Amino acid sequence: MAKISIIMGSSSDLEIVQEAIDLLKEFKIDFTAKVLSAHRTPKELAKYVEVVSRQGTRVFICAAGGAAALAGVVASLTSLPVIGIPIETKSLKGLDSLLSTVQMPAGIPVATMAIGKAGARNAALFALQILGITDKKIQARLLAYKKQMRTKIIKTKIKL
Amino acid sequence: MAKISIIMGSSSDLEIVQEAIDLLKEFKIDFTAKVLSAHRTPKELAKYVEVVSRQGTRVFICAAGGAAALAGVVASLTSLPVIGIPIETKSLKGLDSLLSTVQMPAGIPVATMAIGKAGARNAALFALQILGITDKKIQARLLAYKKQMRTKIIKTKIKL
Amino acid sequence: MAKISIIMGSSSDLEIVQEAIDLLKEFKIDFTAKVLSAHRTPKELAKYVEVVSRQGTRVFICAAGGAAALAGVVASLTSLPVIGIPIETKSLKGLDSLLSTVQMPAGIPVATMAIGKAGARNAALFALQILGITDKKIQARLLAYKKQMRTKIIKTKIKL
Amino acid sequence: MAKISIIMGSSSDLEIVQEAIDLLKEFKIDFTAKVLSAHRTPKELAKYVEVVSRQGTRVFICAAGGAAALAGVVASLTSLPVIGIPIETKSLKGLDSLLSTVQMPAGIPVATMAIGKAGARNAALFALQILGITDKKIQARLLAYKKQMRTKIIKTKIKL
Amino acid sequence: MAKISIIMGSSSDLEIVQEAIDLLKEFKIDFTAKVLSAHRTPKELAKYVEVVSRQGTRVFICAAGGAAALAGVVASLTSLPVIGIPIETKSLKGLDSLLSTVQMPAGIPVATMAIGKAGARNAALFALQILGITDKKIQARLLAYKKQMRTKIIKTKIKL
Amino acid sequence: MAKISIIMGSSSDLEIVQEAIDLLKEFKIDFTAKVLSAHRTPKELAKYVEVVSRQGTRVFICAAGGAAALAGVVASLTSLPVIGIPIETKSLKGLDSLLSTVQMPAGIPVATMAIGKAGARNAALFALQILGITDKKIQARLLAYKKQMRTKIIKTKIKL
Amino acid sequence: MAKISIIMGSSSDLEIVQEAIDLLKEFKIDFTAKVLSAHRTPKELAKYVEVVSRQGTRVFICAAGGAAALAGVVASLTSLPVIGIPIETKSLKGLDSLLSTVQMPAGIPVATMAIGKAGARNAALFALQILGITDKKIQARLLAYKKQMRTKIIKTKIKL
Amino acid sequence: MAKISIIMGSSSDLEIVQEAIDLLKEFKIDFTAKVLSAHRTPKELAKYVEVVSRQGTRVFICAAGGAAALAGVVASLTSLPVIGIPIETKSLKGLDSLLSTVQMPAGIPVATMAIGKAGARNAALFALQILGITDKKIQARLLAYKKQMRTKIIKTKIKL
Repeated sequence: MAKISIIMGSSSDLEIVQEAIDLLKEFKIDFTAKVLSAHRTPKELAKYVEVVSRQGTRVFICAAGGAAALAGVVASLTSLPVIGIPIETKSLKGLDSLLSTVQMPAGIPVATMAIGKAGARNAALFALQILGITDKKIQARLLAYKKQMRTKIIKTKIKL
Repeated sequence: MAKISIIMGSSSDLEIVQEAIDLLKEFKIDFTAKVLSAHRTPKELAKYVEVVSRQGTRVFICAAGGAAALAGVVASLTSLPVIGIPIETKSLKGLDSLLSTVQMPAGIPVATMAIGKAGARNAALFALQILGITDKKIQARLLAYKKQMRTKIIKTKIKL
Repeated sequence: MAKISIIMGSSSDLEIVQEAIDLLKEFKIDFTAKVLSAHRTPKELAKYVEVVSRQGTRVFICAAGGAAALAGVVASLTSLPVIGIPIETKSLKGLDSLLSTVQMPAGIPVATMAIGKAGARNAALFALQILGITDKKIQARLLAYKKQMRTKIIKTKIKL
Repeated sequence: MAKISIIMGSSSDLEIVQEAIDLLKEFKIDFTAKVLSAHRTPKELAKYVEVVSRQGTRVFICAAGGAAALAGVVASLTSLPVIGIPIETKSLKGLDSLLSTVQMPAGIPVATMAIGKAGARNAALFALQILGITDKKIQARLLAYKKQMRTKIIKTKIKL
Repeated sequence: MAKISIIMGSSSDLEIVQEAIDLLKEFKIDFTAKVLSAHRTPKELAKYVEVVSRQGTRVFICAAGGAAALAGVVASLTSLPVIGIPIETKSLKGLDSLLSTVQMPAGIPVATMAIGKAGARNAALFALQILGITDKKIQARLLAYKKQMRTKIIKTKIKL
Repeated sequence: MAKISIIMGSSSDLEIVQEAIDLLKEFKIDFTAKVLSAHRTPKELAKYVEVVSRQGTRVFICAAGGAAALAGVVASLTSLPVIGIPIETKSLKGLDSLLSTVQMPAGIPVATMAIGKAGARNAALFALQILGITDKKIQARLLAYKKQMRTKIIKTKIKL
Repeated sequence: MAKISIIMGSSSDLEIVQEAIDLLKEFKIDFTAKVLSAHRTPKELAKYVEVVSRQGTRVFICAAGGAAALAGVVASLTSLPVIGIPIETKSLKGLDSLLSTVQMPAGIPVATMAIGKAGARNAALFALQILGITDKKIQARLLAYKKQMRTKIIKTKIKL
Repeated sequence: MAKISIIMGSSSDLEIVQEAIDLLKEFKIDFTAKVLSAHRTPKELAKYVEVVSRQGTRVFICAAGGAAALAGVVASLTSLPVIGIPIETKSLKGLDSLLSTVQMPAGIPVATMAIGKAGARNAALFALQILGITDKKIQARLLAYKKQMRTKIIKTKIKL
């Protein structure tokens, strides 16, 4: 039963979303990932959100670029937490994706992460932090992950 | 039978959208105007687009601010032309609304107008230009409107 | 008789505009395409707009970059719908082109599309949507195009 | 036992944060709210995060403006979910606050909301959505809240 | 015989342009000022540029806001120097006007000044600097003006 | 006797400034070009402006990037017209150069051109337009140049 | 003997600079404050920097708006530390001032503070931190100031 | 005894920070350089600031990108001068890093340098200018460095 459901607006977003996928795999968490567009497959998207919600999804992660409506549209269809990853765009470099994802109206929150790969990795981590509130194992692994990051930095040597 | 259907994401957008309404009244064109939000009333919005399309709508005008998904969502539901009005926002002054409306992915066009009142007025004019292609009366009135603007400017006197 | 007339401000814009051209060819619609600059050939541009309007143009598509006056100048010369494609620029990445195209004063609308290739493709689609209002064949093809996009996305498989 | 802990960087942020407070009161959820600055009270902040975490905090909401380090610093100190509200600033209108909050490095996510009041309200809603995953009562109230928003919009009448 | 010709896109620009007018009066230079829009009165504008050029105009000053095509269009019609004043706009604060005025393509220069009143005053000064190259009187007055500014600043006392 | 004096803030600006140099050579106009920095050689710069002014310079062209003070500093030292070319920068793409060049205070105008190569070419053209006011030969060559641009565009053929 | 020398580009900057003045008075540090413009009084500015440097100035604080060359020009004239305060501008809200102050070329550093009042206050504090390195009294007062800020925040009570 | 302490948020920042390191080596100044993250190693960072302060650090140089909290957090922990280098980021090109570093609240100054390599070099120079106030040798070397820059520029020859 997948507790995390990843949706991306285009198959070209996969390169970035892979960061989230790799992290969830590293954490051995069940998840699903699917390409569905708010603009090109609105009905299939609505259906999908409904189906995976019934099947046990607890958190949505949505990645889209440009006029990035995906996360907001998913948030309009559910009361589960929705996390948004703004994908970098060719011309405006993801500023468009960021503003389209984060500037949501009162009533429909989207938890927005950084543009690009750091944002994708953090979307997965944030979903795990949510699940970790009531899942001691995930919480323990998150603490271990944090420790590991710390250790890696502390061990960095700079040759002057 | 209303050929133009105006949808705004919030009743607070009416102050701006009024510019479009006034112009359509001036042109004595049948239209409908309704508050429906892509984020707060997704199902009602989809239903509405379907119903008014069947009732004769030929052009949609959508006004929204912030992460302005409205015009894009309507465009995802129809093959009729959709015109977007980016509403000015408190903090980012409508730059967010503009980018969320205009940066649509290939396949789902939204004809974006300027931020605010000029954009609202032009949305109505553009809808009329579309209808005017096959409606000689509207075309004649558009030419008269253009002439009137010209005359007004030419008559402007500046006191030095 | 070409119902759609494409004008680009510079021959270097063709790489982007090709997206629009390809789509119109795919739809087997008659169109013309020409390089004419609002700044370098103002008189020839005015003449061209007049001539092709008389010859049956119903919609203009204008592509320009930087201080992109082209679409606005064409809109000042006609009451037909004008669609603008902001071309990406070297330094400001098309933000200049976008604002110069979209921020039109009340009275002279330009239907602005996204910066770059997505915008070019959508300009062609939007022109077809306009013609499709009164042309059942085009409308049918647009619905087929939309369906095709949907199918393509739904069939996308992600290897996890 | 307060499950939600609100921290704001300055007492002047309260006007915006009040939106979150009012919503949590409306939902009758226990929460705490405190002024603590990442830059002016770093030790007290670290202490506070530790104490309230032990006392049952499940989600942090952090509001700050300008070089808004607060949410990121709290996120560095805990593995609980941290939600960030970018406060509008006098000169740059909150663009600085937004980028300082959202552009977090991989490993330390901050769930960023919109700039200003909508963001504050949504921060509270998002915290509730997180708690609602395992709390049926909250989930029910969220659905009711969503329904209420819908009803309010549907009932809106526009005088033409 | 007016050597400087001021054109503004809208009568609402006069408040800003007044800065230029006042300075030219202070310098007792003959000039003309007229409201003509690149978008609303393209033909009258072309005519006007031709007429005043024949009547002795040596420098054009053009003020416009938003998708500010005016200065560029005038520059397309003449080989005389054209100075552009970007007018502040309601939503984007003149960033749109600035980029539309300054980002001209190679071949058609517009000498762009600062947004708003400082830009208007400097447009007049710059026109005088151009005329001053071959007019000793104007040059002398410009030096006196510069000296006067210097004296005013040097005399400023700050109460601590 | 060089009537146009080009100053660039760094030898790395030459690649862009070459556009101006090439155009002035094409027009067979005497000019000088020198690397001098407002920040690194303030005294030499002041001296140079004084010397070349005495030797017959009528127009200055200044190119600089980043916190581009060069054109403004030259304008502070002379009453001759100063044209500014904002050089594209690595991170902010010349937006910093543009704003540092164009947003001059009232009293000290800098005639700002577009960022990069188009701006460099236009700086030379604009200097020639200034000189052309009283030099019939230059004026004739400018008209020929304009005609040549027009012809080149008109002859452009697009293969569909 | 004034160890800190404040220069502002215009008397209108005093409202902001007052924050720095008040803090230096609070710390009972000798300082001078003067209006001198890089663009309007370049020679007097150079002279002033030389004179106060000889009289004991150890740190410069420079405030300017728009194309804010002041801090950079002072930095070009001295090897003493120069701190820059970007003044908020009417149209671009100080983004122009910030970029003109901070984006200095390699070799001529300007220590840039935040736009507006917070920046002015911090400019004074930073100057004191510099002097505090070798002045135990100032260092002690800075620690006391920091403690005072902390206490003020800790004592803040929020009425829920 | 190292008087200058460089901290960078990530080992990937070293490429930029190398500019500062090289300059300090050129000046033969003792310094330390370490990778420590405000977000990933908050406790180690606090410890490090305390230790090196006791060991003689007089100035901190902090380099970070994105939501760059590093310099601000160090400034919150010390009363010594802190200099910030905004690192260029992939999507927003360092605008995020710049605003996160410079827009500090009143009370906690960070002396911000330009984005990227010029900023790194200037951070080192500015630290030396601070130490140079009371160290005649450093001051003399700074003057020599300035002279060297001047000479290099004056000797630049341009082949026309």
